[in-house]
Order: sequence, then structure tokens, then C-alpha cells
Amino acid sequence: MKIVTDIQQMQNYADRCREEKKVIGFVPTMGYLHPGHLSLIKIIRPQCDILVVSIFVNPTQFGPGEDLNTYPRDLKRDSDLCQKEGVDVIFHPSAQEMYPKPFYTFITVEKLSEIMCGRSRPGHFRGVTTVVAKLFNIVKPHLAIFGEKDFQQLQVLKQMVNNLNYDIKILNAPIVREDDGLALSSRNKYLKSHERMDALVLYRSLQLAKDRFTQGERNAGDIKREMEKLIKGIPSAKIDYIEIVNLETFEPVDFLSNDSLVALAVYIGQTRLIDNIVLKK
Amino acid sequence: MKIVTDIQQMQNYADRCREEKKVIGFVPTMGYLHPGHLSLIKIIRPQCDILVVSIFVNPTQFGPGEDLNTYPRDLKRDSDLCQKEGVDVIFHPSAQEMYPKPFYTFITVEKLSEIMCGRSRPGHFRGVTTVVAKLFNIVKPHLAIFGEKDFQQLQVLKQMVNNLNYDIKILNAPIVREDDGLALSSRNKYLKSHERMDALVLYRSLQLAKDRFTQGERNAGDIKREMEKLIKGIPSAKIDYIEIVNLETFEPVDFLSNDSLVALAVYIGQTRLIDNIVLKK
Repeated sequence: MKIVTDIQQMQNYADRCREEKKVIGFVPTMGYLHPGHLSLIKIIRPQCDILVVSIFVNPTQFGPGEDLNTYPRDLKRDSDLCQKEGVDVIFHPSAQEMYPKPFYTFITVEKLSEIMCGRSRPGHFRGVTTVVAKLFNIVKPHLAIFGEKDFQQLQVLKQMVNNLNYDIKILNAPIVREDDGLALSSRNKYLKSHERMDALVLYRSLQLAKDRFTQGERNAGDIKREMEKLIKGIPSAKIDYIEIVNLETFEPVDFLSNDSLVALAVYIGQTRLIDNIVLKK
Repeated sequence: MKIVTDIQQMQNYADRCREEKKVIGFVPTMGYLHPGHLSLIKIIRPQCDILVVSIFVNPTQFGPGEDLNTYPRDLKRDSDLCQKEGVDVIFHPSAQEMYPKPFYTFITVEKLSEIMCGRSRPGHFRGVTTVVAKLFNIVKPHLAIFGEKDFQQLQVLKQMVNNLNYDIKILNAPIVREDDGLALSSRNKYLKSHERMDALVLYRSLQLAKDRFTQGERNAGDIKREMEKLIKGIPSAKIDYIEIVNLETFEPVDFLSNDSLVALAVYIGQTRLIDNIVLKK
């Protein structure tokens, strides 16, 4: 396994792979890998010849006052994990390599990035789409994989790939959870021990939504109110948003008549966590 | 020479060329080719194995009330010209092929696209950068060429290529002029016969700037005022802008201490024309 930090070197390597008709698979990450990331690697590994994992904590997707500086990093541990999973290349550029000055160019996906996490974190998705486009131009993959944990990110990126004609197949992977239901996230590390239990309320509220849906409830407002009530019972929890949207258009729905996504963001103490569930008709 | 209208077919063709280690050169155009376009083709032809010319009148770079519908088109004539110049592929997609609904993704280059033509034509450069990024992802060229006639467009695109890490070398080609100095443009076709003479005032005002610079004048305001005075002597002419900017940063200058660009846009009757000259220190 090699670790590449230089953009031109990564591009030249990708060109050589493509000349040899090798299929390049790509897993973009911000590092501090957990079993959620590893599941992405395991899914894409058999579908490609050369597997590239990028590890880059992307400054442009963090807002002012967010956790860019405290975001956990551990390259040694990440490379050991990648090595074990049969990764061929870790692409690990510096922020200066990725954002030399002057940097003026940004990609925006309208509509899809204006709601939910986009409303709570202005500029977040602009940072995500811009860095992923850059990584696509550097790694030149045939396929790339993203987790459904960040479902809105997945949809925004699929829209970008589609609209900008990136010749890349996008795979998605299901959410990986702890045994008790907590969705894996690098940010779980921030939770203090007493908050770890409280954080379960995200999963429990999604299960509540699923149960009510299974029982025949179709009123999105009623489902959201029940979720809200459950979450408000946890003193350390503060709701950022709860949304029920159409899975295709991402528009909020009043009644669940088609496949829908229930998504939420909740602060547990100082830590903002997200989770979601798809309710299939 | 082949004409390709399908995006996936163009991408597959580009992949095959790259597997065969062939260098792909690219000339993006809106068609209705004139000797200015042909000069781009002649410059890039010896530097590549496969030469692709795109012909696509891009709707997203026209503002409301602009000339999208009347913009001249003549594919038969264009293909004959391309054939003669040794072009390998014309990429000629429909607007529907390029902009299927929903289309939400746009690329913006801040600062550089906010002045001059960007101020007069809001959204114009966003349309240009977005379509060129799409075309880059479709044609997958190693090098591409743009004319200095649209100097601001050239700088905006170079910034985009740089910032988004497109692995593409950008060439620029000097302005091609009629014998009397008028810069070639597909829009010259709009000029009524009596306007054709008046249109020379753009070139003449740039020559005036150059002469004053050669004589030692360094005050940008004074040079602009002299140009303005000359242009205002032509009744059919209406100035959109006259700007003198630093060639690197594209910031307006008060004094010409480094290499500078003098650029202007002038309406001759209903027709908006642009032109520019570089003044080397």
C-alpha cells in the first residue's frame, strides 16, 4: 500500500492504471476510520482493481465555530486499518496542497443542499461538493462509494455527478450501527460517558417513526411531533431539525404516500449527531 | 471525421483513446466557426493525436433578453470547415442531452467573474464554467484551447481548472482580426452595413490606449477618459464598460505599473461587442 500526498503524482498514477484498463474504486473519507468506513471499503473492494481511500479533513465544509480543529485524526491507525482491508493507495494531501491561494471556485447544488443539514450548516454542502469534485479530478475513479448515514450528502453528490457528467458510478452503503443502535460516526468520540446513553434517542425516535408508519400512520406532522416529544424527554438533547422528505425529490412531505426519508439532527450536549431511516411504501 | 451527439458515447470514445495513450485535444465552441475558431484548431492540431471540437450553443450562459434564439447556427458549414482542418470528432449534443431535468448544479468562480462582462451579464460566467466543466468530463481532454478575445473567460476558466484540479493543460490563442482591425466574432454577423464601420471604434480606442501607453502615459483614468471620448464620437456606439486591470489578479488598476489588460464592451446599435489588448510593461 502506498501513501500519496502530491496531487500530480496521484493523477499520474491514475492515468497509468487507466492505460492498463484497471478499474479504480474510490472511498473519500475524513479519516479516523470506524467500522462504517470499513464497510464502504469492503463493499467496493471486490468491484475494482485499484482501491484508493482519501483521508482529508476538508476545511471548506466546516463553518465558523464548528469542529475543524478538534476533528479527530490518526493517520497511523487509519493506514493500518486500510492495509488490512487491502487498500492500494491512501491519498492524504495537506490543506495547502488542496487549497493553494487564490482559491475562488465553488460548486453548488441548488435545492437539495438548501434544506436540513444545508440550512443548519450554511456552506457545508458547497464545501463537500467542491472537495469531492476536486478528489474526482485527482483520483479519476470509475466508481466511488458513500454511506447512507449522510443521506443528504449522498443525494447532493449524486445530483452533482449527474449534472456535471462525471463518468463515475456512485454506490451507496447502509448505515452501520453499534449493537444498541447508535449510528457510527467519528463525532461519537466527542460524547461524554453519560451522553453516550442519551445519544440513543436519535435511533429510538427513528424506530418510533418506523413503528408508527408500520401501524398505518401517514401524517408526517404527527410522526414528527411524536419523535419530538420523545427527544424532548432527554435533558441533554436539543433538536436541530426533524424532517420527513420524498426520497427522490427531497421535498418535505405532509403525507407519506411514497418512499420517504426521515432524517434528523440532534445536539447531545455540545455534539451534533445526525441519523436517518428510509420508510418504504 | 465523426459527429457524436451522445454523452456516454463521447465518454467511451475518450476512454478508448486514453487507453491507447492518445493525446486528446479539445476546442469548445458555440459553432458558426470563423477564422478565429480555425486559428484555435490550427494551433492545437499538431499538439494532439485526437482533436475534438464541440459545437454547442449553451443556454445557461445567455441572460434573459440576450440572443440565445438568434445566435447564428450552421452545422453543415461548420463540419465542412472542421473536416478541412483535420478535426477527428465534432461533439454536438442537444440542449436536452446536456441539461436534463432536474438540473441544480453550478460552478462559480468568485472575484474574477464579478467584474466587467460578469457585471454586465449576471450568471454568464457561471453558465460558461458549468458547461466547460461538463464538456471536460465528457471529452476528457489532455489539453484545451481558448481565444484571448474572451480574455476574462480565459482567466476564469484557468482559475477553475486550477482550483478544481482538472488535469488539463489550457492553451490560449491570440485574437484574430479583420484587415481593418475588427476582432472576429460570430456576433459581427448582427452588424448592419453602416454599423460595420462604426464597430471599428473598439479597436481604434484600444490602439489609442496602446499609443498613449507607449508615449509614457500610466494614469489608467486618463487613458480610459480618452478612449471614452473617442467612442462617444460615434453616434451608434454605447459604452458598456472600459476597464484597465492587472493581468494576473484582474483587479482594476489606477496606474499601469505591471502588465495590464485594457478591456471593453461596446454596443454598436443593438449588438454588444467586446475586445481587449494587453499592455506589456
